Amino acid sequence: MISNKMKSHVGAEGVIRRMFEAGIQMKAEFGAENVYDFSLGNPNVPAPDKIQESIKKIVDTLPPGKIHSYMPNAGFPEVRVEVAKHLNKIYGTLYSEKNIIMTAGAGSALNLLMKSMLDIDDEVVVPCPYFAEYKGYIENYYGKIVEAAPRADGSFLPDMDSVAAAVTPRTKAVIVNTPNNPTGVIYPESVIKELADVLRKKEEEVGHPIYLISDEPYRDIVFDESKYVSGSGADNEEIRHLPWMPDYYDDAIVAYSYSKSLSLPGERIGNIIIPDTCDGADELIGAVTTANLVTGVVNAPSLMQLVIARCLDEKSDVEFYRKNGEILYDIVTAAGFEAVKPQGAFYLWVKAPGGDDNKLVELAKKHHILMVPGSAFAGPGNVRLSYCVARDMIERSRQAFLDLGDEY
Amino acid sequence: MISNKMKSHVGAEGVIRRMFEAGIQMKAEFGAENVYDFSLGNPNVPAPDKIQESIKKIVDTLPPGKIHSYMPNAGFPEVRVEVAKHLNKIYGTLYSEKNIIMTAGAGSALNLLMKSMLDIDDEVVVPCPYFAEYKGYIENYYGKIVEAAPRADGSFLPDMDSVAAAVTPRTKAVIVNTPNNPTGVIYPESVIKELADVLRKKEEEVGHPIYLISDEPYRDIVFDESKYVSGSGADNEEIRHLPWMPDYYDDAIVAYSYSKSLSLPGERIGNIIIPDTCDGADELIGAVTTANLVTGVVNAPSLMQLVIARCLDEKSDVEFYRKNGEILYDIVTAAGFEAVKPQGAFYLWVKAPGGDDNKLVELAKKHHILMVPGSAFAGPGNVRLSYCVARDMIERSRQAFLDLGDEY
Repeated sequence: MISNKMKSHVGAEGVIRRMFEAGIQMKAEFGAENVYDFSLGNPNVPAPDKIQESIKKIVDTLPPGKIHSYMPNAGFPEVRVEVAKHLNKIYGTLYSEKNIIMTAGAGSALNLLMKSMLDIDDEVVVPCPYFAEYKGYIENYYGKIVEAAPRADGSFLPDMDSVAAAVTPRTKAVIVNTPNNPTGVIYPESVIKELADVLRKKEEEVGHPIYLISDEPYRDIVFDESKYVSGSGADNEEIRHLPWMPDYYDDAIVAYSYSKSLSLPGERIGNIIIPDTCDGADELIGAVTTANLVTGVVNAPSLMQLVIARCLDEKSDVEFYRKNGEILYDIVTAAGFEAVKPQGAFYLWVKAPGGDDNKLVELAKKHHILMVPGSAFAGPGNVRLSYCVARDMIERSRQAFLDLGDEY
Repeated sequence: MISNKMKSHVGAEGVIRRMFEAGIQMKAEFGAENVYDFSLGNPNVPAPDKIQESIKKIVDTLPPGKIHSYMPNAGFPEVRVEVAKHLNKIYGTLYSEKNIIMTAGAGSALNLLMKSMLDIDDEVVVPCPYFAEYKGYIENYYGKIVEAAPRADGSFLPDMDSVAAAVTPRTKAVIVNTPNNPTGVIYPESVIKELADVLRKKEEEVGHPIYLISDEPYRDIVFDESKYVSGSGADNEEIRHLPWMPDYYDDAIVAYSYSKSLSLPGERIGNIIIPDTCDGADELIGAVTTANLVTGVVNAPSLMQLVIARCLDEKSDVEFYRKNGEILYDIVTAAGFEAVKPQGAFYLWVKAPGGDDNKLVELAKKHHILMVPGSAFAGPGNVRLSYCVARDMIERSRQAFLDLGDEY
């Protein structure tokens, strides 16, 4: 008696879940220390100490009627003021609390945006490969996902002709994700400029805005600082940072999450930034805020909002992830595989010899290595290894990868 | 550029929001102490001390990698074990963690259920009057709300002929809400038995299950204990409690929230109970769990899950609400209005003289009293007063109500 619609979702979840279950079974059979599980993107660096300190401080100093209370659906105004200030400091923007909507993570943020924008059969363009859940987010509201192919040069950056060809009069938005899950690739400024040019032309052609939704849960997990640009922060101080999408395209919207940057994935806390430059910004802000209520989420969890406002300058241990990525890249390439050199996030994108990712995943299982086939991310012919794992598991996996390489 | 679908939602939100804005304006103009705001259902009793103690205890004793981590989408297994045990203790049920899905409040719980059950144009029956958001929850997934009239006897209990007439082959579920928002009415056992009989007959007629979704965020805010029944808890000890829907109807599902019972509305924490007796229980449990992921909520906030597991025996100060309800009822009836005697929750349902609820709301504003027209709850001809407010505001409102009564 579940809906046909839901049945299709349950199916799509199958791949990663089967991997998860295979992992449990293998660990029981061979011992946890002999299984190399690279399947899950669950940050394993602990949250900064200031998170725990802030929780206790808030509980000790604020009344419970404040901490756990309802607030405007967009979030506590004072929290949104702090988030806006933090962004302005880094990006030299002029946001106020109005431009910030606190959400239950980036996943919920994207759902609120889809709910706000899509009527039945409206389209959303997504460059391949992409985070597996996007399809579900779009289809929740009966929208259609339209895939755009990556460049043929192995960079896994979006191909502009494919993006242009994917846009139709029903296109409401394009979703990009940089640093990228599953590839670990960061869009350089030149690509963002090209994308903005293409979309501006297409907006003129179709006669309505095409929102560029930048899903950035990995924004603060960057190893390849050559992707940085120079900008002027609030104090006219030069600050180097990843390109800020709204600097390049008026109709850009940013979805952010503290799940990865502050290791709080279970807390469901993130936000949406809708700049005033966006076409119909006020209407869209109103819609997204109402969507929080209408979808029953109502607001981002209240205590965590207050915690975040005190921890905006905190950082995760990015060096740990960088080093993990470097070691795993060395192991995998030494075993004879081709992989994209890690630039950010915590995923290694590895080419399946012969182009059969499912075969590689099955062979890997024989060597007790768990990975996710790229097909699950509309990136067939590749596999994703998550390296947000214990360092010693990576080290211990060396021989298994060498043996796996020998199979080819 | 927002969707047409979303535009209809933004409209529906108008009534309570306009009331909220009118309140801000009036408080600025006349002073907060001269405005009597009964518009919002925001619990004002502070959370039990054990909530704050548990937060600190958890932060002090568990590693951050546990507290803030991802977990299975249904919630931490050990939390769900505790919730199941707690229910079993009270209701003598035999639930295990499998039957419990932790959610971001009851609003999110209902959305997960709608997402799991509805294809386009599937129908959900809701007895009038009902919580204003149900319509949006159902329409989010392109379902249709079918309203069933209340009894003509002024009890505001569902009329069984209307419920029966509302069911069609497209009916997937019926949503009931007891103790009720907006009326404060509690369904007596006899009504639940009648409803179960009607739905069982209809299930046979249409040839598929009709789920009875019982939305129970106010389950623990009860003043009229004559609505209790006797049951045997886990230790065969007799425990008096509100009738437990799944005891009367196999296809009953319960949505619960800790927002009201533990005064945690901003934290977004609740759950869904799907008993094994439900037709297709396993499939439905799987669908709802996946819906958590697919809608981007992913899981109920992690720290709050852990907190709840330690506070299941805690209670809100129900006596405060009871006394508030009694005082407000006395004031309103002394002013010449008819009202439903408070039974539970924290809402007073008042008849608009002449049947024009909008007129009463407008006249009340002249006396600085804010209330919500029953039309917003599909209950025209009545108004809702929320009495989760400061006791002295209620006392101070006495003269304003007397003056309002004089207008008629």
